[in-house]
Amino acid sequence: MSAALTIMVFDENRIRASIIEEGLREAGHDRVVVLHDIVGLARQIERIAPDVIVIDIETPNRDMLEHLFQLSRSVRKPIAMFVDSSDTASIEAAVDAGVSAYVVDGLKKERVKPILDMAVSRFKAFSRLQQELAEAKSALEERKVVERAKGILMKSRTISEDEAYALLRQAAMNEKKKLADIAQSVVMAAAMLGS
Amino acid sequence: MSAALTIMVFDENRIRASIIEEGLREAGHDRVVVLHDIVGLARQIERIAPDVIVIDIETPNRDMLEHLFQLSRSVRKPIAMFVDSSDTASIEAAVDAGVSAYVVDGLKKERVKPILDMAVSRFKAFSRLQQELAEAKSALEERKVVERAKGILMKSRTISEDEAYALLRQAAMNEKKKLADIAQSVVMAAAMLGS
Repeated sequence: MSAALTIMVFDENRIRASIIEEGLREAGHDRVVVLHDIVGLARQIERIAPDVIVIDIETPNRDMLEHLFQLSRSVRKPIAMFVDSSDTASIEAAVDAGVSAYVVDGLKKERVKPILDMAVSRFKAFSRLQQELAEAKSALEERKVVERAKGILMKSRTISEDEAYALLRQAAMNEKKKLADIAQSVVMAAAMLGS
Repeated sequence: MSAALTIMVFDENRIRASIIEEGLREAGHDRVVVLHDIVGLARQIERIAPDVIVIDIETPNRDMLEHLFQLSRSVRKPIAMFVDSSDTASIEAAVDAGVSAYVVDGLKKERVKPILDMAVSRFKAFSRLQQELAEAKSALEERKVVERAKGILMKSRTISEDEAYALLRQAAMNEKKKLADIAQSVVMAAAMLGS
């Protein structure tokens, strides 16, 4: 992993924050921003645009965790979280919220760097899978509408599937639009025209 | 998480193995099988059919890691792995191999249980996403072949899309087969018949 990552550390406890900061600097990370106040955290993340976020909360209460998990869901960045204790439900909630590393009772200077690496790797692996899923779903949706439009054209003009497809493609090129968008127009228009 | 999980622990070092075992028993897990020999590990996993696997290797060498990552890929179970040191490349390799928790320099009796919980949660979340992806891809493939078969029927019999679909459905019911399988037969037969 490149040392040029911008890392944001959130820790209300200044002593623990400095442990994390030291661990990062000793591992060669020097673009580290440390924040101590949870108020406005989301805005700061937006402003700083960190590559990774490290959050440490000594004794997390349910509200704070809920708030941070919410944040995790919205920022879509690798997040490594340290907590001193946790129950099974919070661990599950952390995973569900996309927290890439959730470390219970394991804060130690030497461990910050491998945990950061882990968070980044895990985030990438999960994002890749999510991306693939989004693509497969969208391909399915586009396929449905294109096939539907082809069927409409085949029937109304008594042409072959290939000819119907060529018609759609031609229209897409002429209109400089995506094939799926043209198909969507055909399906909608055919319904309106009752054809 | 239920305490009735069967947990397999692999550790060549008997002292460290007992730390893990104690951590698990203190957390209420009493179905724990400890193995000390890497030879035949895959077969033992098959025989014991554990719900979770805990692997501890003090000083992993590249060959051993490669072997264990290979195992992780094939067993499809939550795996928590403890190592005393690691480089970034091995961390990435662990994530890629589906190791659900890869803990560097963090073996401590009290931490075994939360790490196990984490491994199980993460494994479930990842499996869910993989499952969804497999379903989306297979839906897309089935869609393609069904639409292709419909097109063939529409053209060869000059019928509407709905009629073509009804034909396929009827055949699937008569043959007690999946719609996609019937569609596949139509596509193949049409190609053979040159129609």
